[in-house]
Order: sequence, then C-alpha cells, then structure tokens
Amino acid sequence: MPIDPTSQIEITAYEWVPSFAQGQVRDLRPRWTCEEYTLPYKVRLISAIERPEWYYDDQPWGQVPFVRDGEVGIFESGATLIHLAEKAGALPPTGSQERAKVLSWLLAAFNSIEPFVMEFVNCTFFSRKEDWAPLRRPSLTTALEGRLKRLETALGDDEWLAGDFSIADIAMTTILRAIPDPSVLAPTPALAAYVERGIARPAFQRALEAQLAPFAEHDPKTKAKAENPAKEGV
Amino acid sequence: MPIDPTSQIEITAYEWVPSFAQGQVRDLRPRWTCEEYTLPYKVRLISAIERPEWYYDDQPWGQVPFVRDGEVGIFESGATLIHLAEKAGALPPTGSQERAKVLSWLLAAFNSIEPFVMEFVNCTFFSRKEDWAPLRRPSLTTALEGRLKRLETALGDDEWLAGDFSIADIAMTTILRAIPDPSVLAPTPALAAYVERGIARPAFQRALEAQLAPFAEHDPKTKAKAENPAKEGV
Ligand SMILES: N[C@@H](CCC(=O)N[C@@H](CS)C(=O)NCC(=O)O)C(=O)O
Ligand SMILES: N[C@@H](CCC(=O)N[C@@H](CS)C(=O)NCC(=O)O)C(=O)O
Repeated sequence: MPIDPTSQIEITAYEWVPSFAQGQVRDLRPRWTCEEYTLPYKVRLISAIERPEWYYDDQPWGQVPFVRDGEVGIFESGATLIHLAEKAGALPPTGSQERAKVLSWLLAAFNSIEPFVMEFVNCTFFSRKEDWAPLRRPSLTTALEGRLKRLETALGDDEWLAGDFSIADIAMTTILRAIPDPSVLAPTPALAAYVERGIARPAFQRALEAQLAPFAEHDPKTKAKAENPAKEGV
Repeated sequence: MPIDPTSQIEITAYEWVPSFAQGQVRDLRPRWTCEEYTLPYKVRLISAIERPEWYYDDQPWGQVPFVRDGEVGIFESGATLIHLAEKAGALPPTGSQERAKVLSWLLAAFNSIEPFVMEFVNCTFFSRKEDWAPLRRPSLTTALEGRLKRLETALGDDEWLAGDFSIADIAMTTILRAIPDPSVLAPTPALAAYVERGIARPAFQRALEAQLAPFAEHDPKTKAKAENPAKEGV
C-alpha cells in the first residue's frame, strides 16, 4: 500500500482546506501517481491558513504539492509527475514517439487547458462578486469549450491520451474534474466519459481517500471544540 | 549553424504574423533550444491566417510550434524543449536534484507564470475593448506582480533558475519578455536583469532573427503588391 511512513518519498499536503476544495487539492496528482505505480509515500501536513514561512524555500509560492524523494526536492505538480513516473520506470524511453506523446499531452494539460479552467474557477467562484467576473464568464466559457472540443477530437475513440494510461491522463483528468459547472463538459460527452474512466480507477480512489482522511481531525471547528469543550454546553 | 534544410528536426512556424506578434511567436522557444545545443533544424512555414485543416492532426489547437524529429512528433513548446534537451544530452540524469530543479522551474514557467501573463496580454491587448478587461486588469496585475516578487526571491543572487543555463530559463525568459507593460517588471529589477541576461545570449539573437526572417517576404501587403503591380501606379 503506497502510504508508508518509512518511505523516502514525502508529499506535502494541507492538513485541512474548506469543503469546496476538499478532494481538489493538487497533492492528489502525485498521490495518484504513487498509487498507480505502487511507489510508497508518506505525507507531511502543513497549515493552509498559516502557511509557514520556511515552506517558501521548498515551494516558491508556498503552494502544495511539494515532493521530497530522499535528497531530491520537486515542486510543481507537473514536475512531480514526471519525477515519479521516471522513478517508477513508467515513462517510455528517451527519444521515442511514445514518450513525446506523454510529454506533449502532459504539457497540454498544464499550459493549454488548466489556465482556462483556473480562470473559469476564479470567475465562477473565488472572484464571483468582483465586477469583472460575470462579464468575463461568457467569453471565457466559449474559449474553454473551444479548447475542449478540439481535445475531444484529438482523443477520438482512444481510451487514454497517449497510448496506455499515463501521467498525462492523471494531469488532464484532475484538471477537467475541477471544472465547477457540469454544463461546460456537456457538449463534449466523450471527454466527460474520459473523466469518469479516470476517476473510476482504484488508484484514483485511494489517492482521493488519502487526501480527505486528515481533514476531519484538523477541521478548525472540531479543533476549537476540542480546545474549549466548556463552550459546547452553553 | 542550426538552420540546415537537410536536418531531421523540423520546427513548424508561421510564415507571417502581425507586427505586434513578430518576435514573440512561441516557435522561438524550440529554435532557441536548438541554437543553444547546436541541434541543426529546418523550418516548415504555415499560414497563421488560413490555418490548414490537416495541421490540427499535428497540433490539437492548430497552434505553433510543432516539432518533428524524424518519426517523432511533439507539440506544446514545453514538451519540445524537454525533447530537444534530452536529445542533446543537456538534461541532468534521471533522479538527480539537478534534473528535478530544471523540470520544476520549467513547469513553473508554464503553469505558475504564463497563465497570468497570457491573461494580462489578453486584458491589455487582444480584449482591451471588452467591458470586463479594464475592470480585471488591476487585480490581475496585483496577482502577476505577487508571483514575480516570489520568483525574484527564489532566484536570489543566482544567474539562472536551475544551476547552469537550461530550458527552464528559455521558457521563463520568453514568457517574461512577453509582458507588454514594462511597469510590471519594474518592482522586480533582478528579474528584469535576468530577462536582459537571457536575451543577450547569442543563441537567443540567432533564434529571433530566424523567426523574423520570413515575415517581410510573406507580408500580405507585399504579396498583394507583387500579385497586382498595376495597382501601385494608380
Ligand atoms: N502550479 C502549481 C499550482 C499549485 C496550487 O495552485 N496549489 C494550491 C492548492 S490546489 C495551493 O496551494 N493554493 C494556495 C495558495 O495559492 O496560496 C502546481 O501545479 O503544483
Ligand atoms: N501551449 C502552447 C501555446 C501555443 C500558442 O499559443 N501558439 C500561438 C503562437 S505564439 C498560436 O499559434 N496562436 C494562434 C492560435 O491560437 O490560433 C505552446 O506552448 O506550444
């Protein structure tokens, strides 16, 4: 089982996040990769609310995930996926078409799809009360849907993006499932089915459960209660 | 000299783009990489205006660059950089901290910096007449400047992001120099100096000239003149 406190692979994750983010935090990506390739890993939990200052030495923007593998430190979820797949011997050989396809689709997920998804989440959620957000949403939705249409065409009848299931699918699936409005994927049903196929994998399910596991214990409300039990009776 | 019509590496680029895009098109990235590592390459020019339908089989969104290396096809500029650096033996060995650093910064350029730069360019330029654009610009500028501040801290006194000059610097430099407003980089002078160091490299200058070279010949105005010389005298 990949979670193993003696492992030299350590994934940094948040001890708790608000419910809307639970199951969406990007440490899911290296966790899922470890589960797919049976790489045992342990977890280091940090606070998302009071981000420790020393953590910026590991991750320039203080974000998760950060992965340590013995002496090697890796930030950016995309880079952690490449590192872990190479460690597991799960990337096709250097110079091959198979490797080029995995890397092309991995970068496509991070540079051609995720930027649109991030700004869409921003419009729909984080910044929804800003004056610009409702005005930006229609054109952004059109742009995102245009990207998805071409992505669906490229996938065609294939099961996965680059031959066998790969880190490109881990990236693309976690990015597409972050779209907070099901009507966006509706015009591309083959992509919606692709996401369903990805999240049905047992390795994904184990990664998801592992991310969610610490949240109950670290919930600020639960903690407050535990620290001030007297308040409860009032 | 890296441009060599007999080479098996072929970079697809546009035959002409409007003046605001000249010198910024993303085929600059694999061109620069070929120049740094003395990998000879040839060029396939396509029309940006009438994008050939067959080209979507090479690049899912019909964009440039696309790189062919013999039998291997690679899309996404980030993936082309990894492929070319691996081919040149210019990536540190698998599993090393040096390699992890190059890949982390490469992905940071594409996933933590470029999305903000792209939307900033969009607000400032392509969509400047949309109702949302002037409203979005202030918060986006703050977000981008916040990213750049942390990036400058991470660079510290180093010359390059990941030890020796690497594809991470090719990515980050081309992304930062696309910011269309010098006041954005002004609060981070060490980053502005980093960009200057990058573009001062002879390999960058050769790549830039090679991108610009075909534009005069393929300028739609010049072409119209050549095809209808009579009009000139009217
Ligand atoms: N480009 C980064 C993005 C990481 C990221 O956005 N992490 C989020 C959690 S999913 C985070 O830590 N957000 C808190 C913050 O930005 O302060 C990656 O792919 O690793
Ligand atoms: N994520 C892609 C982006 C490529 C891209 O945006 N290319 C631009 C030129 S710099 C393009 O072809 N634009 C025309 C279009 O989007 O139709 C990459 O890094 O290769």
